[in-house]
Amino acid sequence: MLAFESALARAQAEEGLIPEASAAAIVAACNSLVPDEAKLVAEGKRSATLAVPLVEMLRTEISKSSKDAARHAHFGATSQDVLDTAMALCLRTCLEEADRSLEGAVRGLAAKAREHAATPMMGRTLMQPALPITAGFKIARWALALAHDRERLADAQAAGLAVQLGGPVGTLDAMGAKAPAVRHRVAMRLALADTPAWHVHRNAWIDLLDRIGQVVATAGKIARDLSLLAQPEMGEMLEAPPRVGVGASSSMPHKRNPVGCAHALAAAIRMPGLLATVHAAAISENERALGGWQAELAVVPEIASQLGSCLDFLDGIASSLVVDAKRMKANIDALAPGAKPAAPHAADEILAALSPYL
Amino acid sequence: MLAFESALARAQAEEGLIPEASAAAIVAACNSLVPDEAKLVAEGKRSATLAVPLVEMLRTEISKSSKDAARHAHFGATSQDVLDTAMALCLRTCLEEADRSLEGAVRGLAAKAREHAATPMMGRTLMQPALPITAGFKIARWALALAHDRERLADAQAAGLAVQLGGPVGTLDAMGAKAPAVRHRVAMRLALADTPAWHVHRNAWIDLLDRIGQVVATAGKIARDLSLLAQPEMGEMLEAPPRVGVGASSSMPHKRNPVGCAHALAAAIRMPGLLATVHAAAISENERALGGWQAELAVVPEIASQLGSCLDFLDGIASSLVVDAKRMKANIDALAPGAKPAAPHAADEILAALSPYL
Amino acid sequence: MLAFESALARAQAEEGLIPEASAAAIVAACNSLVPDEAKLVAEGKRSATLAVPLVEMLRTEISKSSKDAARHAHFGATSQDVLDTAMALCLRTCLEEADRSLEGAVRGLAAKAREHAATPMMGRTLMQPALPITAGFKIARWALALAHDRERLADAQAAGLAVQLGGPVGTLDAMGAKAPAVRHRVAMRLALADTPAWHVHRNAWIDLLDRIGQVVATAGKIARDLSLLAQPEMGEMLEAPPRVGVGASSSMPHKRNPVGCAHALAAAIRMPGLLATVHAAAISENERALGGWQAELAVVPEIASQLGSCLDFLDGIASSLVVDAKRMKANIDALAPGAKPAAPHAADEILAALSPYL
Amino acid sequence: MLAFESALARAQAEEGLIPEASAAAIVAACNSLVPDEAKLVAEGKRSATLAVPLVEMLRTEISKSSKDAARHAHFGATSQDVLDTAMALCLRTCLEEADRSLEGAVRGLAAKAREHAATPMMGRTLMQPALPITAGFKIARWALALAHDRERLADAQAAGLAVQLGGPVGTLDAMGAKAPAVRHRVAMRLALADTPAWHVHRNAWIDLLDRIGQVVATAGKIARDLSLLAQPEMGEMLEAPPRVGVGASSSMPHKRNPVGCAHALAAAIRMPGLLATVHAAAISENERALGGWQAELAVVPEIASQLGSCLDFLDGIASSLVVDAKRMKANIDALAPGAKPAAPHAADEILAALSPYL
Repeated sequence: MLAFESALARAQAEEGLIPEASAAAIVAACNSLVPDEAKLVAEGKRSATLAVPLVEMLRTEISKSSKDAARHAHFGATSQDVLDTAMALCLRTCLEEADRSLEGAVRGLAAKAREHAATPMMGRTLMQPALPITAGFKIARWALALAHDRERLADAQAAGLAVQLGGPVGTLDAMGAKAPAVRHRVAMRLALADTPAWHVHRNAWIDLLDRIGQVVATAGKIARDLSLLAQPEMGEMLEAPPRVGVGASSSMPHKRNPVGCAHALAAAIRMPGLLATVHAAAISENERALGGWQAELAVVPEIASQLGSCLDFLDGIASSLVVDAKRMKANIDALAPGAKPAAPHAADEILAALSPYL
Repeated sequence: MLAFESALARAQAEEGLIPEASAAAIVAACNSLVPDEAKLVAEGKRSATLAVPLVEMLRTEISKSSKDAARHAHFGATSQDVLDTAMALCLRTCLEEADRSLEGAVRGLAAKAREHAATPMMGRTLMQPALPITAGFKIARWALALAHDRERLADAQAAGLAVQLGGPVGTLDAMGAKAPAVRHRVAMRLALADTPAWHVHRNAWIDLLDRIGQVVATAGKIARDLSLLAQPEMGEMLEAPPRVGVGASSSMPHKRNPVGCAHALAAAIRMPGLLATVHAAAISENERALGGWQAELAVVPEIASQLGSCLDFLDGIASSLVVDAKRMKANIDALAPGAKPAAPHAADEILAALSPYL
Repeated sequence: MLAFESALARAQAEEGLIPEASAAAIVAACNSLVPDEAKLVAEGKRSATLAVPLVEMLRTEISKSSKDAARHAHFGATSQDVLDTAMALCLRTCLEEADRSLEGAVRGLAAKAREHAATPMMGRTLMQPALPITAGFKIARWALALAHDRERLADAQAAGLAVQLGGPVGTLDAMGAKAPAVRHRVAMRLALADTPAWHVHRNAWIDLLDRIGQVVATAGKIARDLSLLAQPEMGEMLEAPPRVGVGASSSMPHKRNPVGCAHALAAAIRMPGLLATVHAAAISENERALGGWQAELAVVPEIASQLGSCLDFLDGIASSLVVDAKRMKANIDALAPGAKPAAPHAADEILAALSPYL
Repeated sequence: MLAFESALARAQAEEGLIPEASAAAIVAACNSLVPDEAKLVAEGKRSATLAVPLVEMLRTEISKSSKDAARHAHFGATSQDVLDTAMALCLRTCLEEADRSLEGAVRGLAAKAREHAATPMMGRTLMQPALPITAGFKIARWALALAHDRERLADAQAAGLAVQLGGPVGTLDAMGAKAPAVRHRVAMRLALADTPAWHVHRNAWIDLLDRIGQVVATAGKIARDLSLLAQPEMGEMLEAPPRVGVGASSSMPHKRNPVGCAHALAAAIRMPGLLATVHAAAISENERALGGWQAELAVVPEIASQLGSCLDFLDGIASSLVVDAKRMKANIDALAPGAKPAAPHAADEILAALSPYL
């Protein structure tokens, strides 16, 4: 939030809307201010927005050096400008990490897939054995799904991570003809896209959240597969070799629970409700929503958190996935003796699509 | 969680399953232990349950006084026993407060309804003026809806707030024939219902959460009505008289936003997604879920939090609701000149149903 | 819908609000009218309610015998009165069937549970083998969960299946002081509860839908368990003995898919979204919703349909569930050789609770 | 479904996998067969897929001319191949219509926006009057949001509308090395994208559904705005000039309800639950889901239907939206006498972005 106020002051000074000295004082205060969080929350509740008390605290901080500059802070902007921009900045950091993490996961799984391209395993449909596939085919498909999720997620960022600057009703009237230039400068400083205010037309942003949901769904699908294959009755894969203290039970010391799968599945079970909220919240009222936007604001960190859980899971399996080729073969022999092994071309096609990661 | 371990130890000592001295040491440790929360979270992640590190910390604490007692702690129980019981205890506190708060809200609104039983106002359907009602009729219906929500919520607590004690697979085998007696004693000590373990059959609990959702929906409905009536173009009701610093805007000092409505509507927009998650999470696997229960655990505090937002809103309007009878009359005259005012019997019927609160 | 109009006319004649002859003509027309469904849908779209064209068709039908009576039809009522009452009547039929079906399912499963009260099987938590339980314990818990769902569902009907009669704005003003008596008579004729109009305060009704959701969740949970246990690698239960043509695959003639589980799981996956919609739709505007109620109306038949799928599944397993005690024993021996079998008292407690069904 | 079987047969004949004569017989039968829908539904339930009885009916039809050809039908394919491809074909038709419809809506609204670029109206935030904007600014933003939704929807079709052809476990093993060529030919014939089988990795498809959800959300937002502005107390816009028989009430002949808004809002209220279901259903099991995919299959037509309702609404307002500039001015004068009108540049920026539609 302070990064936004700082960038706004600089941009407005550059466009001659506020004095250079005011901008300097505002920037300095943004750097020095350590907001009282408890106060922020308590007062934020009274105005239904954290931005109102934050701007007040900021103005008090600026006032210590300059009364004029204090009046120039937040000029022409509104609460939602601060919060939406701050939210985009926070999510960008998450998504940069997510991109690296997904790249690593795809590489790790693609390598594992190549290694097992010809390892026969039973294919299972409707939770019944069907016909043989190869372990590499299965793992390569997981990897390719994640690679596509990663691309879609990257694509959505271009429009989805945009500066929010519209002022009280979206028109930036207070900044006059300089408004577009100010917004452009703020966007450049914050390395966000420059688009008209999106406060009540949020689909570029929602598209980004939907695509986070797609990553979580893929992680959930992989976790579902793994948790089935890790049943000792199948014993074909493990999310990681057993380690002391991981997956422990408070009542059964011998047990090793698939905790990575538990985290990913819990995230995948939560995500549909979170996305439903985001879509429901989008039905806003006129120039600023009453309730919807506020609901979305509470939900976005939860969405980021589910993504984080899934990335941890994917990191884990990318490095530690255990494939038990012997058990796979034994299961085929037991369930479908004499079944013809799957031809390699299906795995090959997927591996070819994964070549940038191999 | 420590209350559970404490009650369990006492119950097991009373039934002769562990020595009295061990129980005393366990209870003492439960009282003295201040869990390291950061460690709890970090280690909880590795086992996908906070109960594993908590029990470990507790045993370390008990060991300071007695190695034997340490082994007797958590005897025969499992992680989910601890967490579900703890969750029920936490929610009970919320619900006690909710009950008082709802009673107050119904009383406040019922009184306001009686006061305005004959105040004509326009009834509006599909967001268009329809025929006159009275302000008292509308407010009485809000109050009655809340009164019924309160009753349903109270009814659901009898079965929904139950001790969870099933051990590793729900059978409490380690406690032998004493198991039901132990469970009964734990339930009595914690003032929870005594029922067979409900870890994978959670509908009595979910019923309670659904009914919290109903309170939130009613609050959201009232907030929707109020926010429409508080539009200055209607000006028929306000959630409260304008107060300095409440509902402030960061850009328009003259504005007074209906912040109570914003909080209630945000809660109402979030709740359907939260309930959807709870219902989705219920499709558990065999004797303990992988992912579903863990998702529910994260969502229950969010549900309680939405309830809290709504109770704050209801408290506020119960004491501060502003009814502008003059504006109501003027609107009828402008929109439907000569419309026959509503007869009082409709309001009377609802007020009669509210008599326990009047 | 015609049953409502018919009952309304009779009630109004009995209270002297319309002539006996009109009531007779209206009732006759309600019996003779065969609504043109295509026209109903097309015209219903223009008014956003099926009731408008239906009432028009009805009046045309009545006019054939009496112009006066035509004017007396639908007197004092509104579209939502017709539709909500009709919806309650339709759902009641479903719920009567559901109650019988659930009773049968509980009986069937309880009997199967008693039969296998001492059959050892592996208990599984977080999708890993844990400690032995008995097959009877597991099945008895399914049955008890359904028995409790059934009770909750029955309880919710008392208030949830109510006549809707409020007129244009909920006050029934057109019927004057006779309004409550008319509503009471309509309720009695239709065997619905008599309550004040609930058009915008729908929680008694929503409570009923939530509880349908609980039945579906239990069925989904049972299906999840069964589909895991029916994996040939476990082979401990089947939803039914293999039958020709059931569970067939279009590509693998040897396969027998657990189709009952597929239906129940599909229903369980759909239900959270349907309930989320119902709760979201409850945030209505003033005296009649714009959009919310209309969304709920479309969703209620879907909810009934998911219930139906689950009842079919439960009927099936109640009569045909296959328990393979030999395989259960073999799995325990393989996974946890020497594990102590579960004591019978856990199953006994649940069976005792099921005694009304045994 | 028959289009798929027909294209598959042709492709396989061209690749030499089945005789030309068989392909001809299959194609002929696909053209002549009129499936018995009641039988399809009844038998489809037994296998949990409509494809099983359809393929059987098709084989019976082919057998009339050739027993050999009957065996060659559906060669190497599986039920989900038929159904997913059929679903993609059906949705493509909807999306072609949607694209035309959205283009028209954007054009109509953009023209209306240009006409009212300088018409002052009150901007409203948190349901309170804030500062003036122009009617053109508001309408142009609606149009631009739809234009972006349209682009995103078009983008998602490239990958989202793909042939499904994977055979029993996704490997197309039965078709040997010819498999990719067959799949490519089927894709070309059906004008769908050619991608590896996506039966259990459905995010390209889900991305398309999410983006349909975005269109619905924008329509819902516009409907929310319009329904607020159409309140007679504001009277600033109407979805259309009043017409006899549209928006009629069964109890108040004078009323004109905003029925277009009702339809769009009902769709927008349903969509979050439908998308939640699609995302939840994506957590499939191994090589074919048990329950999840079946749930999605039931939900996709509902999603298309909500899109249809919204397109009807948008068509309507694009041609018939009523802007009451006089009322807008009067409201500004009453609510904020002397308020400076909004400068035109904000509207200009949005209109410039809409230039392809102007």
